[in-house]
Amino acid sequence: MKTNRTEREKMTAGEPYKQFDPELIKRRVFMRQQLQEVNQITDNDDRNQRFKELLAATGDDFFVESDFKFDYGFNIHIGDHFYGNYDMTFLDTCPITIGDHCYFGPNIGLYTPVHPITAKERNADVEMGAPITIGNSCWFGGRVTILPGVTLGNRVVVGAGSVVTKSFGDDVVIAGDPARIIREIKQD
Amino acid sequence: MKTNRTEREKMTAGEPYKQFDPELIKRRVFMRQQLQEVNQITDNDDRNQRFKELLAATGDDFFVESDFKFDYGFNIHIGDHFYGNYDMTFLDTCPITIGDHCYFGPNIGLYTPVHPITAKERNADVEMGAPITIGNSCWFGGRVTILPGVTLGNRVVVGAGSVVTKSFGDDVVIAGDPARIIREIKQD
Amino acid sequence: MKTNRTEREKMTAGEPYKQFDPELIKRRVFMRQQLQEVNQITDNDDRNQRFKELLAATGDDFFVESDFKFDYGFNIHIGDHFYGNYDMTFLDTCPITIGDHCYFGPNIGLYTPVHPITAKERNADVEMGAPITIGNSCWFGGRVTILPGVTLGNRVVVGAGSVVTKSFGDDVVIAGDPARIIREIKQD
Repeated sequence: MKTNRTEREKMTAGEPYKQFDPELIKRRVFMRQQLQEVNQITDNDDRNQRFKELLAATGDDFFVESDFKFDYGFNIHIGDHFYGNYDMTFLDTCPITIGDHCYFGPNIGLYTPVHPITAKERNADVEMGAPITIGNSCWFGGRVTILPGVTLGNRVVVGAGSVVTKSFGDDVVIAGDPARIIREIKQD
Repeated sequence: MKTNRTEREKMTAGEPYKQFDPELIKRRVFMRQQLQEVNQITDNDDRNQRFKELLAATGDDFFVESDFKFDYGFNIHIGDHFYGNYDMTFLDTCPITIGDHCYFGPNIGLYTPVHPITAKERNADVEMGAPITIGNSCWFGGRVTILPGVTLGNRVVVGAGSVVTKSFGDDVVIAGDPARIIREIKQD
Repeated sequence: MKTNRTEREKMTAGEPYKQFDPELIKRRVFMRQQLQEVNQITDNDDRNQRFKELLAATGDDFFVESDFKFDYGFNIHIGDHFYGNYDMTFLDTCPITIGDHCYFGPNIGLYTPVHPITAKERNADVEMGAPITIGNSCWFGGRVTILPGVTLGNRVVVGAGSVVTKSFGDDVVIAGDPARIIREIKQD
């Protein structure tokens, strides 16, 4: 086991890390500058290409409307045939992994960071996190919120406005706050 | 019955249409350029006038704060005496019709697009939709989400943060996720 | 009792006021210009300093990501050691008071304005409001909505996506729409 891990490595692993680590600060500053610039690009090919270069992985077929915001980019892994509508916010202190053929509505929030529940620890600027994993062929309606640690299976439909607080398997429609299974989907 | 309808006509009618139709792509590209530009205008009269020109219909008294985003504009019909606060998102693949004297809080989402529930159909890029119709003298608190196909009557108040999944008649306060009637309103 | 109060004073007190008062219009126009400009600053120190100058009070340690939007700024009082993530919207017709050591996730909405429930009064452009008060050492997850008149105690954690419609005391985790107590927190 590697003993001298960086703060970035601890953060990505979901373990307590120091958010004021110089490497992480440098990346955040760089990323805010990039987001400010790239979100103003109205040429679709140009904007999508620039976003691809800021993320860990994307497919060839990748389209996101502005304003797309995230923390670091290096923890965002998106499959092929992705479409994301206006104003998505992905907080990627931990890995966010999205399968192929996923379509996201506007105002989607995927949040991986976690702070301690007790004030004393939280005020010491300790921060943790938990990954978010989304399967293939999922459709998220607008204004969906996904909490840290959630895994969704394949072919999951999430109703607009839902707050997803726990994991769900394949072939379900979920909705509500907290999201619950509304119906099972019989695929063709 | 007209047999050679355009994709725009099918889309507006809520029927399956091809979202990669050249006419629709051209409009979306134009509109994103316009939104990027108009949302940066801080002169109220200038910004409101520019938005009016992008929408199907508005009244004379029309005020929206930035950033107001929508898909096409040609399916958005807004009555007189309209005020919309920050960061509204209207997805108008199908008609969005809003009566007179409506006041909308910030972060409102009106979403008309619908995708197929089964993955196979959805991945074939078939898209449909359903119109949203809002009566006169409605007040929406902040962060209200309205789903495709919803009709609200006159003088309806929607509580902040609500997700409106079905239609309601006149003179009610609705709130929650899904929104339910909280009280009836006795008008003067 | 002062008899010739300004519309700004009535507004701040939560009483019916005229939103088209020249002094208030002037401030709103100024503020939208400032927000448009300041939210595009990517240098953190510069952006945070500019925001500090627009608010009634902040601590020395103050960090907000863009886009931070509010109505007037003169009714926003924030304690020391504040961090606010992307896209917060504070509607401060009435005072918004936030204690020390508060951390806010992205897409937070604090809304103090209130309109009349009956259409006739509302259409006469009468507007009121109620203050929002947040204690020390609170953590708000992403996409939290706080309604007019809400007071939260110290060391309160609000779950992502929650809609807070009433007040709560110290040392609780609240979540849901409407937010309810999920658990009590035993501080160290």
